[in-house]
Amino acid sequence: MISTLQPATLSKMANAIRVLSMDAVQKANSGHPGAPMGMADIAVALWKGHYRHNPSNPGWINRDRFVLSNGHGSMLHYSLLHLSGYDLDMNEIRNFRQLHSKTAGHPEVHITPGVETTTGPLGQGITNAVGMALAEKLLAAEFNEDGFPVVDHHTYVFMGDGCLMEGISHEACSLAGTWQLNKLIAFWDDNGISIDGHVEGWFTDDTPKRFESYGWNVIRGVDGHDALAVDAAIQAAKSADKPTLICCRTVIGKGSPNKQGTHDVHGAALGDKEVAAVREYLGWTLPPFEMPADVYEAWDAKAAGATVEGTWNSLFAAYAEKFPAKAAELTRRMKGELPADFDAVIAKAVAACVEKKENIATRKASQNAIQAFAPALPEFLGGSADLTGSNLTNWKECVAVRANQAGNHVNYGVREFGMSAIMNGIALHGGYLPFGATFLTFSDYSRNALRMAALMKVRSLFVFTHDSIGLGEDGPTHQSVEHVSSLRLIPNLDNWRPCDTVESAVAWGAAVTRKDGPSTLIFSRQNLPYQERTEAQIADIARGGYVLRDAADAKAVLIATGSEIELAVKAAVELEQQGIAVRVVSMPSTDVFDRQDAAYKAAVLGKGLPRVAIEAGVTDFWYKYVGLEGAVVGIDSFGESAPAGVLFKHFGFTTENVVAKVKAVLA
Amino acid sequence: MISTLQPATLSKMANAIRVLSMDAVQKANSGHPGAPMGMADIAVALWKGHYRHNPSNPGWINRDRFVLSNGHGSMLHYSLLHLSGYDLDMNEIRNFRQLHSKTAGHPEVHITPGVETTTGPLGQGITNAVGMALAEKLLAAEFNEDGFPVVDHHTYVFMGDGCLMEGISHEACSLAGTWQLNKLIAFWDDNGISIDGHVEGWFTDDTPKRFESYGWNVIRGVDGHDALAVDAAIQAAKSADKPTLICCRTVIGKGSPNKQGTHDVHGAALGDKEVAAVREYLGWTLPPFEMPADVYEAWDAKAAGATVEGTWNSLFAAYAEKFPAKAAELTRRMKGELPADFDAVIAKAVAACVEKKENIATRKASQNAIQAFAPALPEFLGGSADLTGSNLTNWKECVAVRANQAGNHVNYGVREFGMSAIMNGIALHGGYLPFGATFLTFSDYSRNALRMAALMKVRSLFVFTHDSIGLGEDGPTHQSVEHVSSLRLIPNLDNWRPCDTVESAVAWGAAVTRKDGPSTLIFSRQNLPYQERTEAQIADIARGGYVLRDAADAKAVLIATGSEIELAVKAAVELEQQGIAVRVVSMPSTDVFDRQDAAYKAAVLGKGLPRVAIEAGVTDFWYKYVGLEGAVVGIDSFGESAPAGVLFKHFGFTTENVVAKVKAVLA
Repeated sequence: MISTLQPATLSKMANAIRVLSMDAVQKANSGHPGAPMGMADIAVALWKGHYRHNPSNPGWINRDRFVLSNGHGSMLHYSLLHLSGYDLDMNEIRNFRQLHSKTAGHPEVHITPGVETTTGPLGQGITNAVGMALAEKLLAAEFNEDGFPVVDHHTYVFMGDGCLMEGISHEACSLAGTWQLNKLIAFWDDNGISIDGHVEGWFTDDTPKRFESYGWNVIRGVDGHDALAVDAAIQAAKSADKPTLICCRTVIGKGSPNKQGTHDVHGAALGDKEVAAVREYLGWTLPPFEMPADVYEAWDAKAAGATVEGTWNSLFAAYAEKFPAKAAELTRRMKGELPADFDAVIAKAVAACVEKKENIATRKASQNAIQAFAPALPEFLGGSADLTGSNLTNWKECVAVRANQAGNHVNYGVREFGMSAIMNGIALHGGYLPFGATFLTFSDYSRNALRMAALMKVRSLFVFTHDSIGLGEDGPTHQSVEHVSSLRLIPNLDNWRPCDTVESAVAWGAAVTRKDGPSTLIFSRQNLPYQERTEAQIADIARGGYVLRDAADAKAVLIATGSEIELAVKAAVELEQQGIAVRVVSMPSTDVFDRQDAAYKAAVLGKGLPRVAIEAGVTDFWYKYVGLEGAVVGIDSFGESAPAGVLFKHFGFTTENVVAKVKAVLA
Repeated sequence: MISTLQPATLSKMANAIRVLSMDAVQKANSGHPGAPMGMADIAVALWKGHYRHNPSNPGWINRDRFVLSNGHGSMLHYSLLHLSGYDLDMNEIRNFRQLHSKTAGHPEVHITPGVETTTGPLGQGITNAVGMALAEKLLAAEFNEDGFPVVDHHTYVFMGDGCLMEGISHEACSLAGTWQLNKLIAFWDDNGISIDGHVEGWFTDDTPKRFESYGWNVIRGVDGHDALAVDAAIQAAKSADKPTLICCRTVIGKGSPNKQGTHDVHGAALGDKEVAAVREYLGWTLPPFEMPADVYEAWDAKAAGATVEGTWNSLFAAYAEKFPAKAAELTRRMKGELPADFDAVIAKAVAACVEKKENIATRKASQNAIQAFAPALPEFLGGSADLTGSNLTNWKECVAVRANQAGNHVNYGVREFGMSAIMNGIALHGGYLPFGATFLTFSDYSRNALRMAALMKVRSLFVFTHDSIGLGEDGPTHQSVEHVSSLRLIPNLDNWRPCDTVESAVAWGAAVTRKDGPSTLIFSRQNLPYQERTEAQIADIARGGYVLRDAADAKAVLIATGSEIELAVKAAVELEQQGIAVRVVSMPSTDVFDRQDAAYKAAVLGKGLPRVAIEAGVTDFWYKYVGLEGAVVGIDSFGESAPAGVLFKHFGFTTENVVAKVKAVLA
C-alpha cells in the first residue's frame, strides 16, 4: 500500500514524527526523543500501510490493536495519533507531560484516545499485546461464522531492547508461540543502545534465535529506516501461521546529526542547539508545533478509517441479521456489561452456601462460586499459573485453551507475571472477563501487573490461594505474611479475604460486578467453618466489613478477616463466658469498607470501644483501625515449615492469646 | 570417577535417595517425591563423581556450590546431605517438614548444613547460582596468583520445567551467557510434567535452542537415568568456555511403578500402597529410615572431602606465605567482616556532608556516600538495571564487569528481578557486598528477591531512586506511592528513606554495617535541602527516627521522611509564627526505629501529643504512629504526569495543607 507513495512523501511523513517528538520533548524539557526518531520509518510502514483503525472511533471493536511496549517513546504514539486524525490536537502535543494533558509522560489508556494500554514498565506492553491477540483468537473462534469474520484484526507491538531483556518477555512470548498467535506482529527496534550505552556489555542474546525457540516466525535483518522493506516484512508476517517478530535495525535518534546512535538521545531533550541542527539536517523549516498541510494530508486516516469501519459495520449488520443472538452477545461482551439478571446468579450462589453450611477451604468455596457463575457468564476466562488443582480455578464444563482449541481456562504455566499482564491485555481487548491464580506469596512475582491493572482500571480478577501460614509444611518461602496488607496499599485494587463459603461467593460477586478496577480474591488452603448470619448481615458483606457477632453490652471489638474469623468468634465466646461481652467484626475487604459512609463505618466499629485486630499477617496495617490504644494479633516475622495447626499455635493464634490481648486493652 | 563403580552400586545409591525421599514425604504426608525420584541418577553422577565439598566443613570457602532451583524437591538434597555425611541425622529426615527440624519444606540456607541458598520460589535458585558463579569468577580474577588458584570451584544447579518457564530464568541465563560463566553447570530435569500435567499445552519452547541463543554450551539428549551418561556430560561441561546446560531426559517419580511419569507423583505423598509397590519394584527390603551400610559407605564423602579440602588448605597456606595480605583480605571478605576502622570511614563521610551542607538530590548524596566508601571497601560490587546514570550507582574508580574484565560495577541490563536475585547469590557466595539499583517503582519487579534476601538474612543492598511523585513528568507508571510502605511490611528488611546528604551517608553506613539482613536505600530524584543538626542528633539518625527540630512547648509532633522533611520543617516554622509550637521528627527508617527501646521511642514521639505524619505515599501505614486521633498527609491515589513542583502542590504537599491538618488535630 505504501509502495504507491513517493519516497519523499514517506520520508517527510517520518520526519514529521521526528520533529514533533523532538519539539514536544524539548518544550517539556523531559522525555525520550530517541525511540520516536528511530522508529519513525517503521511507524510509517505500519500506520500508513497496514494499521486498520478509525481515528473518529477509537472504540471500534474490530480495530487493529497497537501497543507501544517501549512506552517511554510516547511521543511516537502521540505524533501518530495527532497526525492521523485522532482527537488529540496540537495543544495537547504542546502540553506534553503537563498536568491533565492528554499527553502523559507514558501512554495511558483511557486518557489518550487511540492508546490501547498503559505502558512504560518494560516488558508489560508486549505481554498485554499477547493477551489482546489471545482474546482476538478466542473471540473469533467463538463468534465468527462462515463468511462473517466479525472478529478479525491484528495486534501490533513496538518494542525495544529493554522489553526483550525483561523476564516477562520470555513468559509472554513463549506462550504466544505455544498458542500460535499468528495475528500478533511485533517489531524489535534493534538499535543496540540502552540507557547504560551500547548493549554489547549486557545484552548479547541472539534474539531471532531465541524467538525461533518459542515457535515464532522471525524476519531478520530488516532495515528499519526503509519503510518499504518494513512494509514487505509486515506483508510476509500477515501470512505466517505463527506470531512474527520483525527485527528492524535502526539508529536511535535518527535525524539528530550529532547525537543519533548514542544513548544521549535516549531519555533527554536534545537541547536547542541540536534541535536546530536536526531541522537543518532534515531540511525542516517550519517552527515547532506547526505541520505542513501535505503532511497532514498524507497521514490523515479518517477517511480510510471510516471506510474500513463502514465495511465492517455492514458485515456486522448482516451478521446481526443472520445471528442476532450472537451479535447481541458480542456487543454486550465488548461493552463489558454483565448478562441481564446476573445479580440473581450471585444471589443464588450465596443462597446455596447458606443452605449447605459447608465447612470447607475458601479456595474450594471459590471454586463453588466459579462453578455457580460460569454457566451464566460465558465471558469468564479462567486460568492458573500451573496450580490449577491447588488454586481450584477450573470448573466442570471448562475447556482448556490450546493452540488449536478455543476454550475458557488457560494453563499459563509457571508464569505469574506473564499471566497477570496477559489478563490485563485480555481485559483491555474486551470480550472476556479474565481471572488467573497462583499462591498468594507469588503475587510478588506479578505485583507490577496488579498495579498496572489498578492504574488502568481494568477488570482483571487475581485469585490467590494458600494465603498464610495456614498452608503449613511448604514453609516460609510459600507462606504469606506481608502480602495481604501490601496488596491493600495499591490504590484502586479491591482485595477480598473471605472467611467462609458465603463471604467467598459475595466476594466473587463483588469482583465480577466491579466496573472500575481489578480485584484480588484471597483464599485459604485449609478448611474454615461456616458462619451463621442474618439476611441483613449477608447483605452487609458487600460493604467490606460488618458486624458478624454482636453483644448487647460489648466492651471491645474484635476485627478479623479470613481464617482468623474462626479464632475471633471462639475468643468472643470464651470472653463471654468470662463475663466480657465483645463484638466481632468481619472485614473481608478493607478497601471496600473504607469507601463506606462515615456513619456506617462508625456503626460497625463502635464508638469509643477498644479494638483488637486479628490477622495471620503483619500487624502494621491494622493500627489504622485499632489505633494506638488497640492491639493486633498478627505475625511480624516469616513463617516456619510445619503443619498448619502447629504453626497457628506457635505464632500465638490461640483463643488464650486473643483473650489475653483483649483483657490487656481493657485494663 | 563414577565409571569405576559397579552399575549395581550406582543404581543402589540412586534408589537410596528414592526410598528416603519417598518415605520422608510419606511420613510427613506432605512434600514432593517426584523430583527426588526422577533426579536421583543425575544426583549420583554429580555428587559422587564431581561435586567437590567437605561434609565436615560446609563453610569451606572453595567448595563447589550446589543449588536445587526446583526447591520443592528438597528431599533430594536432604537425602544427599544425610548420606554423604553432613550433620543431618536420620531423625532430621524423619522429621521432614516439622517445626524446628533441619529439614524444612523447602531447602533453607542457615538451617540445613550444606544448603547454599533458600529455594522454592521458582527461577530464583538458578539466578542465585548465576550470582555465585559471577562471584567466583570475579574473586578468582582478584585473588588468584600464578600457581595459586585459591578460588576455583564450580556452581551446579538442578532445575525443572518450572524454573525454565519463569521469566527470571531468561534474565539470569542471558547474563550468564554474556558473562561467559563457564563454571556454571545447570541440569535441566526434562520430565515433561508440571503440576497441571503434561507440559505440551503450555511449554513448547525449544529449550536447548533458547540457551544457545544466550551463548550457552548445551548438551542435548542426555539420558537422566544413566548416571554414566550424565557423568560424561559433566566432564564435557567442565571443559567448555561457556556456561553449560545439560538436558537430562527423565521420568518424574522414577521407581514408582504405578505413578511415575505422571503429575500424581509431583507434589503429594505416594500413599502406603504405592510406597510398598516402590519397595517391591526396586527390590528394597529395609523399612523406612534405615539405610544399608554399603549405601552409606558408597555415599560417604567425608574422607574425600577432608582430602580435597586438605589439599586446598595446603595450597592456601602456601598462598598465605607468599601473599599474606591477599590471603588475609580474602579470609576477611569471605567471613563478611568489614575492614578494620570502617566506622571511621562512615564518620568521615558524614562529617564531609556536614561540612559541605549541600542541597542536592539524595540519589546524588547516595553516590557521594558510595564514592566515600568504595576506596575503603574493596568488596563493594555495585550495579544498576540499566539506569546507572539515573540511579548514580557508579563511582570514579569503578570498573565495569564484562566477560573478560573483572570489575566492581555491573550493568545488569533491564533485569530488575534477575539483578536482585543475582545479588543474593553473590552475597551468599561471599567475598562481595553487592548493591544494585533501579527506580523505586520497579522494586515491584524484584519484590520476591527482596523478600528472599530478608528471609535468608543476606546482606544485599537494594538502591531505589526516583522515590515518589517527585520524579515528575514520567507519570504514574513510574511514580511510587505504595512502595515505601509496602517494603516496610517485609519482615527483616531495613528500609531507609533519607532526607538529605547526612541522612543518606548514615543510611549507607547502616546498610553496609548491618550483619543480619538486607536493606533498601531509597532516594529522591529531586534536590533536597540540607538540614542542620547537633552532634547528638546526627548520632541518633542511626536509630531510625529522631527529633530533628524541637520546640520548648510543642503542641503537636510532625513525623516525616525523605523529601517531606523539607515540608515538615517549613510547616513547623509557619506554625511557630502562628503561635503553635510543634516538634519535627525525622524517621528515615521506621524498621530501625521500631527496634529501639520503648523509652527512646516515647521520648522521640512525645507523650500525649497529637501527631501528623507526612510522606508522599499511601497513608495507611502511618496510623501505627499517629493513631486514630492523628492525621496523615499522604497520597492514596496514583500520581500524575507533570513537573514535580506542580504535583506536590496538586496532591496537597503544601505548607498550608500541613498547617491546616495540624490545626485540625489540635481542634
